[in-house]
Amino acid sequence: MRAADGRPVSEFGSRRAQGTAAAIYGARASYIAGCAGTACTIADELFGVPAGGTMAHSWVQLFDSEFEAFDTYCSIYPNNPTLLVDTYNVLKKGVPNAIAAFKKHGITKCAVRLDSGDITYLTKKVRKMLDDEGMSDCKIVVSNSLDEYIIRDLLHQGAVIDSFGVGERLVTSKSEPVFGGVYKLVAVEEKDGNITPKIKISENPQKITNPHFKKVYRLYDRETGKAEADYLCVYDENVNDNEPLTIFDPVHTWKEKTLTNYRAEELLKPIFISGKLVYERRTVKEIRDFCAQQIETLWDEVTRFENPHDYYVDLSKKLWDIKHDLLKGK
Amino acid sequence: MRAADGRPVSEFGSRRAQGTAAAIYGARASYIAGCAGTACTIADELFGVPAGGTMAHSWVQLFDSEFEAFDTYCSIYPNNPTLLVDTYNVLKKGVPNAIAAFKKHGITKCAVRLDSGDITYLTKKVRKMLDDEGMSDCKIVVSNSLDEYIIRDLLHQGAVIDSFGVGERLVTSKSEPVFGGVYKLVAVEEKDGNITPKIKISENPQKITNPHFKKVYRLYDRETGKAEADYLCVYDENVNDNEPLTIFDPVHTWKEKTLTNYRAEELLKPIFISGKLVYERRTVKEIRDFCAQQIETLWDEVTRFENPHDYYVDLSKKLWDIKHDLLKGK
Repeated sequence: MRAADGRPVSEFGSRRAQGTAAAIYGARASYIAGCAGTACTIADELFGVPAGGTMAHSWVQLFDSEFEAFDTYCSIYPNNPTLLVDTYNVLKKGVPNAIAAFKKHGITKCAVRLDSGDITYLTKKVRKMLDDEGMSDCKIVVSNSLDEYIIRDLLHQGAVIDSFGVGERLVTSKSEPVFGGVYKLVAVEEKDGNITPKIKISENPQKITNPHFKKVYRLYDRETGKAEADYLCVYDENVNDNEPLTIFDPVHTWKEKTLTNYRAEELLKPIFISGKLVYERRTVKEIRDFCAQQIETLWDEVTRFENPHDYYVDLSKKLWDIKHDLLKGK
Repeated sequence: MRAADGRPVSEFGSRRAQGTAAAIYGARASYIAGCAGTACTIADELFGVPAGGTMAHSWVQLFDSEFEAFDTYCSIYPNNPTLLVDTYNVLKKGVPNAIAAFKKHGITKCAVRLDSGDITYLTKKVRKMLDDEGMSDCKIVVSNSLDEYIIRDLLHQGAVIDSFGVGERLVTSKSEPVFGGVYKLVAVEEKDGNITPKIKISENPQKITNPHFKKVYRLYDRETGKAEADYLCVYDENVNDNEPLTIFDPVHTWKEKTLTNYRAEELLKPIFISGKLVYERRTVKEIRDFCAQQIETLWDEVTRFENPHDYYVDLSKKLWDIKHDLLKGK
């Protein structure tokens, strides 16, 4: 969404999703992240994610000629149709056939989609062809294994694109296919209520667990509204944001910072208590708005695509001491 | 399996699989590929894939001491127990505690598992510690994000390993997370039975489809039994392997080869005909045996991990001509 710089992005990845649930929830998640819609119609039915889309290459192939395919499609969907123009040859066949079909049906609100080839070169040519034929309201949609890097580069090179269709790199975990999270024990609660913190030690320091039952606060700067750090502490600690708070880097402990004008928000929300649902469900629209608002609280340095600045996740002094006592004692 | 060079490999990846079905069918597929067993117990129940396994770090963490954890485990599972020795410190704590627990219970058939650290260094040390204590029947099992490259390198470096536990890189598509296959129309069958081949053209030659309803033969050399090439032809063509067959590279068409002493096997098998199941299901064991036998027919050059030789997939002259007529005609 950030790479597209305000242009609508549609989620097109159902066929590549790893399972039906992944397709549907991927469409839902894409909408939450800011996508304009999806080609997954079940996500529309279930969650109200706006469904839209266009034809497959097989539609065009099915007919004796590309024009016949476009002509038929425009008869069936005269309301803002998108024609896929790269089945045979974008500039020599696809776009001229699309213009002819739109004109035959008197359609001006419409689009063409390119799914292959050099998008930057082709979209510049296609825009000119459309404008020369008075089709300036005809939009250009592009797709083809897009991700944030390709989208950024296309726009940087001056590609003329009105909207994007993004599939496999949006609803599959292309860049990080294996979730490295693990379950480790952090504490044992005895029957008498006594709580013993536990640790897993590793030769690799990043794999050493943070022991104990915990609580996490997000610390916002009151002046800018930006998130400064997350603050992990023991479950029975409390942060009073009327008082200054000194946070420190858990590895390079000499790096510290004292916050004075900040707001501390506890992030963990109870969903079930004693088996009873205590959380009021949000609508997908509410979650989408919440998501946009949360991303707003991050500094640009943190959301940068390449070499982003680390977001700080610090430990309270109490939690840090417990961890180090366990590391030394074992 | 090939990297492990005869040592058993167990499938450990359920927790990282993308969905329940992926975990269960991943375990089944691993067994078909030659794994000795799985930690996914449902795959045992459903398909007879031998289930086995060991403890998690959380088991060790749950007790006041590591020895108590091992002692308790050996009481419950005295029959060939595997103890996980890297929760705190492999050489100083884990292995001595494991030896003490095995000895207390008079267990000699057993194993220790290492899931972190420098496996080559540690397994050499651990093997010596076990042997010095007369525990030469105690096996060493290793795990920790293993794949074929790491396994090959560990063995090359002289790591002393009896068996491997492989998880995320076996049952997830770590190296190729998105399946790039697409559906394109290849032919249209009219109501009168007339068949029209169809093509999808692309600026990228590899993306141009092979038109028409097709049939595929695998061509085996009769002398070596090795697969020489797959031969894609039009559905109504037949290969008679009593006659010589000249195959050619579909791109560099001057590269050709005439087979004389070969066997042609048609690969496509009908599963349903007119909605009726006509295929006799194989057991998982039969599929496993078939798989091993098929891999045997591939040349080592083709199954090499790095820069493998391309396996040839050629087109018949008739199919090649149809494709080129369509490419020129459109």
